[in-house]
Amino acid sequence: MTPADQTDLEVANLAADAARAAILPHFRSADLDADNKLDAGFDPVTVADRAAEQAMRAVLAQHRPNDGILGEEFGETPGSSGRIWVLDPIDGTRGFISGTPTWGVLVALSDADGPFLGIVDQPYIGERFSGDRDHAQLVGPHGTRRLRTRSTADLSDAVLFTTFPEVGTPEEGRAFHSVSAQVKLTRYGMDCYAYALLAAGQIDLVIEASLNPYDIQAPIAVIQAAGGVVTDWQGDPAHNGGRVLAAANVQIHAKALEILRRT
Amino acid sequence: MTPADQTDLEVANLAADAARAAILPHFRSADLDADNKLDAGFDPVTVADRAAEQAMRAVLAQHRPNDGILGEEFGETPGSSGRIWVLDPIDGTRGFISGTPTWGVLVALSDADGPFLGIVDQPYIGERFSGDRDHAQLVGPHGTRRLRTRSTADLSDAVLFTTFPEVGTPEEGRAFHSVSAQVKLTRYGMDCYAYALLAAGQIDLVIEASLNPYDIQAPIAVIQAAGGVVTDWQGDPAHNGGRVLAAANVQIHAKALEILRRT
Repeated sequence: MTPADQTDLEVANLAADAARAAILPHFRSADLDADNKLDAGFDPVTVADRAAEQAMRAVLAQHRPNDGILGEEFGETPGSSGRIWVLDPIDGTRGFISGTPTWGVLVALSDADGPFLGIVDQPYIGERFSGDRDHAQLVGPHGTRRLRTRSTADLSDAVLFTTFPEVGTPEEGRAFHSVSAQVKLTRYGMDCYAYALLAAGQIDLVIEASLNPYDIQAPIAVIQAAGGVVTDWQGDPAHNGGRVLAAANVQIHAKALEILRRT
Repeated sequence: MTPADQTDLEVANLAADAARAAILPHFRSADLDADNKLDAGFDPVTVADRAAEQAMRAVLAQHRPNDGILGEEFGETPGSSGRIWVLDPIDGTRGFISGTPTWGVLVALSDADGPFLGIVDQPYIGERFSGDRDHAQLVGPHGTRRLRTRSTADLSDAVLFTTFPEVGTPEEGRAFHSVSAQVKLTRYGMDCYAYALLAAGQIDLVIEASLNPYDIQAPIAVIQAAGGVVTDWQGDPAHNGGRVLAAANVQIHAKALEILRRT
């Protein structure tokens, strides 16, 4: 089989495999080399992060040389196909350096309409959530199963996740907490894993702010393939990042969106 | 080998194995039967929770018939040996029903001085953190390694975890946030897994309130075996629950304790 014979999903899986192999030797290693990328904030970058993006770029250079690449670590590489691979080698670097098993490798493939294929991979657990136009599935330590979002229709029955309690700006925090006040349960700290749980039908809403395109494109593709809805806080496409509302279905999405728009 | 020939740690491992087998069929199952145990709050109990405690009690009845048992689901069973097994079949039930992989099975063995053997088990990942008077180790999907807490001496270098941002009462929340304001990074939402990360040398502090004895006895034993320190917010023993400060070493413990005592 030549590289061109492989499907996009097979290529995405090869990229995620390469990232797993690059990252795992560094996870929970005592000599983790975390430095601060931004002077103002705490955004650690590890050797693993860079090695994983390089490994994914090598896979794409071999199998999809005409596609563009946007990566968290090494920026944008133009292509000629009108398609772009969007890569976050370690989403949730703070969780990674803390040893939690909820960071992930994110791989998305987008065209002019946004992402249509995505992988959220958790290498330590050995879990891969993927979705494309045909299918959404989880391959994990206890087998393979189809992903399908759930049908919760009322906020009073909903489980809501975000990563940081402050969410974003004070205004964004107030908007989030206006939704949080209406739901059954709010939980924190799961990084990209929260989007995977939404695709898997475990939770109903994820609301975040200040995201980059590479943080959200893979989750969008996986969640849409599983039956969910992802927009910004105005109901517009979210694949350029910023404020994101991910929901299990159109009903619960509309109810959360109404509150976010108002506040 | 007769049951009496097995070490306490071997018996604890058998109990944790039995709990794993009882729980895993129910994790992320669509028909999860969660009802509210407390009218006032949200404390789901699942079929898995009860089945796992029954399975652990059956192991102990066979192998340690003279020891007492304190379990989260079925209360206290007196013994004649002066020793008591303290069981929480699913610590982090909110995380469990949300599908997160950070809940755990907690098994501790205590005498009049408190817990001296503990297991924090994460069945879905297949990770078991254990500690006794001799040794602390992690057996996980990527092998076995010794657990040792780290030597962070300054709060400005420390990583702090708790489960809920509000922590406990408003007063307890203020005390927590006085410590949080001094540390490098604060993270939320990990249930008992945060204590395991502390034992594994990944983080430096866990501060919680309103714990029950069965929530904290296994973490105490694992963390102490790995070189850490666990007390209440006055520096006294924490194995009866309430307000808990777990720290990687005596230096960082003293610095966090000073702030908690003051506020």
